[in-house]
Amino acid sequence: MISVDEARDRILAALSPTAPETVPLAQGWGRVLARPVLSRVTQPPADVSAMDGYAVRAADATLGAVLKLVGTSPAGHPWEGTVGPGETVRIFTGGFMPAGADGVLLQEDATADGTAITVNEAVAANRWVRPRGLDFAEGEALLPAGHRLTARDIGLAAAANHPWLAVHRAPRIGILATGDEIALPGDPLPPGGIVSSNAHALAALVRAGGGDPLVLPIAPDDSQAIAEAAQAARACDMLVTTGGASVGEHDLVQAALGPQGFALDFWQIAMRPGKPLIWGRLGQVPLLGLPGNPVSALVCAVQFLLPALARLSGGEAKPPPTLRVRAGAAMAANDKRFDHLRARLETRDGETVVVPFAKQDSSMLKTLARADALVLRAAHAPAVAVGEMVDVIPLAQLGL
Amino acid sequence: MISVDEARDRILAALSPTAPETVPLAQGWGRVLARPVLSRVTQPPADVSAMDGYAVRAADATLGAVLKLVGTSPAGHPWEGTVGPGETVRIFTGGFMPAGADGVLLQEDATADGTAITVNEAVAANRWVRPRGLDFAEGEALLPAGHRLTARDIGLAAAANHPWLAVHRAPRIGILATGDEIALPGDPLPPGGIVSSNAHALAALVRAGGGDPLVLPIAPDDSQAIAEAAQAARACDMLVTTGGASVGEHDLVQAALGPQGFALDFWQIAMRPGKPLIWGRLGQVPLLGLPGNPVSALVCAVQFLLPALARLSGGEAKPPPTLRVRAGAAMAANDKRFDHLRARLETRDGETVVVPFAKQDSSMLKTLARADALVLRAAHAPAVAVGEMVDVIPLAQLGL
Repeated sequence: MISVDEARDRILAALSPTAPETVPLAQGWGRVLARPVLSRVTQPPADVSAMDGYAVRAADATLGAVLKLVGTSPAGHPWEGTVGPGETVRIFTGGFMPAGADGVLLQEDATADGTAITVNEAVAANRWVRPRGLDFAEGEALLPAGHRLTARDIGLAAAANHPWLAVHRAPRIGILATGDEIALPGDPLPPGGIVSSNAHALAALVRAGGGDPLVLPIAPDDSQAIAEAAQAARACDMLVTTGGASVGEHDLVQAALGPQGFALDFWQIAMRPGKPLIWGRLGQVPLLGLPGNPVSALVCAVQFLLPALARLSGGEAKPPPTLRVRAGAAMAANDKRFDHLRARLETRDGETVVVPFAKQDSSMLKTLARADALVLRAAHAPAVAVGEMVDVIPLAQLGL
Repeated sequence: MISVDEARDRILAALSPTAPETVPLAQGWGRVLARPVLSRVTQPPADVSAMDGYAVRAADATLGAVLKLVGTSPAGHPWEGTVGPGETVRIFTGGFMPAGADGVLLQEDATADGTAITVNEAVAANRWVRPRGLDFAEGEALLPAGHRLTARDIGLAAAANHPWLAVHRAPRIGILATGDEIALPGDPLPPGGIVSSNAHALAALVRAGGGDPLVLPIAPDDSQAIAEAAQAARACDMLVTTGGASVGEHDLVQAALGPQGFALDFWQIAMRPGKPLIWGRLGQVPLLGLPGNPVSALVCAVQFLLPALARLSGGEAKPPPTLRVRAGAAMAANDKRFDHLRARLETRDGETVVVPFAKQDSSMLKTLARADALVLRAAHAPAVAVGEMVDVIPLAQLGL
């Protein structure tokens, strides 16, 4: 059995980002840039006014001076003339500074009579002027390759005049649930069967991680059926299987997929929930075999599938983000398997504390759905007293 | 001018959740339940084994006892007989406990010879048995109405045998950018013009907030054009406008939309960036008028549009989530407008500190894109020294 960190490192080392594609700016949100975004314009494109007021020659705009109003410069309608000595131009926020002017008198600091204004507050040079290029300059690197685009970045790329973006293709993840005992929700349930929950939970998790899920029909615990379903996944960037536990995942996947060209890298990880995990390659397609137990499958997905999705989609691949918070309940010493305790985050005396659920049976999906976090308990971690600090993976911010 | 909190309260009070629709389970992720999910099955459906081993009568399974192997109960293939005195059944994780058996002997604690096993560790009643209904019972309320569905919830709803979910319709948000000076990225730029960034940044933000954006063509600063564009938004759940600043948003929106039935609730908020904000109703359609300045528009969207989207989509509507972190740089006393300083989160001595950017000019979109957080500075907040605690809105977890 290998450690969680070693398993993740080996998975990530075997994966490469998808090839770039061109998408409309409007579809860029959440995608990862394959090329940097360089600005195609300078912003602002000229010196502009930061306020509504009057563009003046600062040297003229002394207290009590009277300036002749010779024009207007609203945003988008530059005034074409030159402000001469003793002259001023009405200007609005974002309006281009006319030639000759080098400062702005706020409108509340002027008395206007229609053809002239009186200066009630002296203006220093460059006052309320945003210089050309204050935000960014043409050719400037605004967003690096490998960056996942936020809504703000979409605005920045738009302002830099990009109608299209080069991003990594969303990785297509085949999802194959196996097991004689499972049926899709609403389908007739075999005797002794249970309703399949893994495939659609994983599909949602793949979406949350920026991937494109392809849910394959359920395969019974039968080598031939699994091999046929796996064929359908050849066009995927990765195949994720769950289950087959009734005869031991390892043997079944090996037996079913060996003739299809499956090469095992490792299986079995020293973690709980989730010991049986398979990593290998089916021909050219990376294969991640998750446990059939829904809680185990999702916890393994947090530790391995989300980082794998980040790597495949071109972003930064790393362990799930953790927080260090105070234990709100005592925890027993851990055994040799890295443990993940489903827990609630609560606020006590204004501070966040984490309280594991009393029952941690890996079959309890409801407990996972209601958890705010997973408490990380390293192999052989000593007992924890109330008030000591522990590391947790907060689940909500993973879209999970 | 009204406060940020009062403005948000008035906006939220005027909005109602969209009507429910039925969606396939696979499309439920991120949507808000309109009806609670009650379980349609009991899980596990029977007493099942938690491990691979042997189903036994605990009273018989004393140390050294030899039990006759009479059958096999893998997951999905229940053994139909009854375990009699001195008998045992091979069982696998998830396999139904056969009648008569009340405990499981781990396979590593047994010596098997093909027709019988020897008990190497005594078994207590109920050992390694997951009782029927351990996870949930038929009829149990698993997920409440108003809950936004995570990937884990999709798994839970599947396990509860729901192929369909009743969720609130994703609110359709019309987005209307106005301004003579703006053009879409890649389109010819008018003299003195700048590239429009608001519409697509807001569209991405609407997606992040669970809405369905409808980007309308840019309207010039002209009452007729704005009125025509607004007509197109009648089918929306809310219309968001940006800009029109060159002649004062208030006047322009009033002039353009008044004849269309626009009723103003309020405009102007004591905040920075973002003073000019319009809230009202265009016939039946709520209208949120954001500033034309891209930084102001996005900061106002964080404070008002994201909570509005939460309310419209049926979820819990509240102010954006904040964190309390240590100031990594001194901050000046604030004036009467609630301020939002764009800032970086950094780690110093293992602790998160927040450091505002030196330049906070509201025209600098690049600074917003690179910010990790907005530092909240209340009206008339006193100066802050390095090491004091301040409240921030972390931006990444908003999908922003």
